[in-house]
Amino acid sequence: MITQLEFILPEFRRGYHLITNIVEKEIEKLPEIGLINIFIKHSSAGLTLNENADPSVRIDFETILNTIVPENQPNYIHTLEGNDDMPAHIKASLIGSSVTIPISNHRLNLGTWQGIYLCEFRNHGGRRKIVATIYE
Amino acid sequence: MITQLEFILPEFRRGYHLITNIVEKEIEKLPEIGLINIFIKHSSAGLTLNENADPSVRIDFETILNTIVPENQPNYIHTLEGNDDMPAHIKASLIGSSVTIPISNHRLNLGTWQGIYLCEFRNHGGRRKIVATIYE
Amino acid sequence: MITQLEFILPEFRRGYHLITNIVEKEIEKLPEIGLINIFIKHSSAGLTLNENADPSVRIDFETILNTIVPENQPNYIHTLEGNDDMPAHIKASLIGSSVTIPISNHRLNLGTWQGIYLCEFRNHGGRRKIVATIYE
Repeated sequence: MITQLEFILPEFRRGYHLITNIVEKEIEKLPEIGLINIFIKHSSAGLTLNENADPSVRIDFETILNTIVPENQPNYIHTLEGNDDMPAHIKASLIGSSVTIPISNHRLNLGTWQGIYLCEFRNHGGRRKIVATIYE
Repeated sequence: MITQLEFILPEFRRGYHLITNIVEKEIEKLPEIGLINIFIKHSSAGLTLNENADPSVRIDFETILNTIVPENQPNYIHTLEGNDDMPAHIKASLIGSSVTIPISNHRLNLGTWQGIYLCEFRNHGGRRKIVATIYE
Repeated sequence: MITQLEFILPEFRRGYHLITNIVEKEIEKLPEIGLINIFIKHSSAGLTLNENADPSVRIDFETILNTIVPENQPNYIHTLEGNDDMPAHIKASLIGSSVTIPISNHRLNLGTWQGIYLCEFRNHGGRRKIVATIYE
């Protein structure tokens, strides 16, 4: 059996944001055993799993990803939509547009320290659309 | 219910190529609700979702990924298969070897600006094998 | 139908390690057609698919990922858990915490040169927990 729901996140500022609670509230009920795919319908934002406790991790994510994919490089040609746009596309493909998480005992079977991150790569990305698909 | 098909892409030159139409033609019929996993059977090419409109994005992908993973570095030891080989392996793991996409109303439920990219990291990668698995 | 099992890997040293055989032994029986998701319950280790033959590839993985995400940078603030900790979190999100692989004819339908890598990003990561979920 498949269940699917689409929802829109609140707007987040550029950076890395824990959204595990938001996702769990939207989903309501999980099967005993299964798999959930959480998918973001955008090419300049991403979803990943990472450390859910210390906010300094999310700050360093912003610092380090900006170093790996710097803005304002003279050899970029896709620049019309802003200096943050092309780096956002690259980061989106490095991080990925969906996460797949096992469901066990009616819960997301994440590790103790894992949470779901919305990675907002644009300066003003707006509200992002999510599709959650659950198999049981 | 599961459907699975394997197909071979035409040969693409090194770079980033929109293959959404090719994938849709191969698949033909999609269920009302489901999930598709598109998988590439290679370790020096990748699949990702990204901007489907402006070709300059795909050109900048090549520029930027080559900067993140440069060729011809003196500390690489896996060099027998060519200067493009080891960087291709790294890029393949950064980008990933499959994409999972929700299916809704018998269509790939992609965002307006999302398309499927074949990422060809080798200078002469040849024809690449794809496995598409559909759950409904 | 869904099958799910959880198992713990032996401890691996920092680096990139082929674990295809270990995963296959744990799983025992695969359906004729399906999909397997292999998930790691940690935020400082990852799973990826890459070249399964030449060990020099795995050595270059360590060299190159350390160059992309260097340790000991003055602008990192999440440093209390060691110099290897914050880079490990970034690498985990670049590489990803799960791989999804098609199953065909009761086997993992990997390409000839593809194997499953455990990517151990910590100096002393300990034993890592895996959840395998199989759909048929």
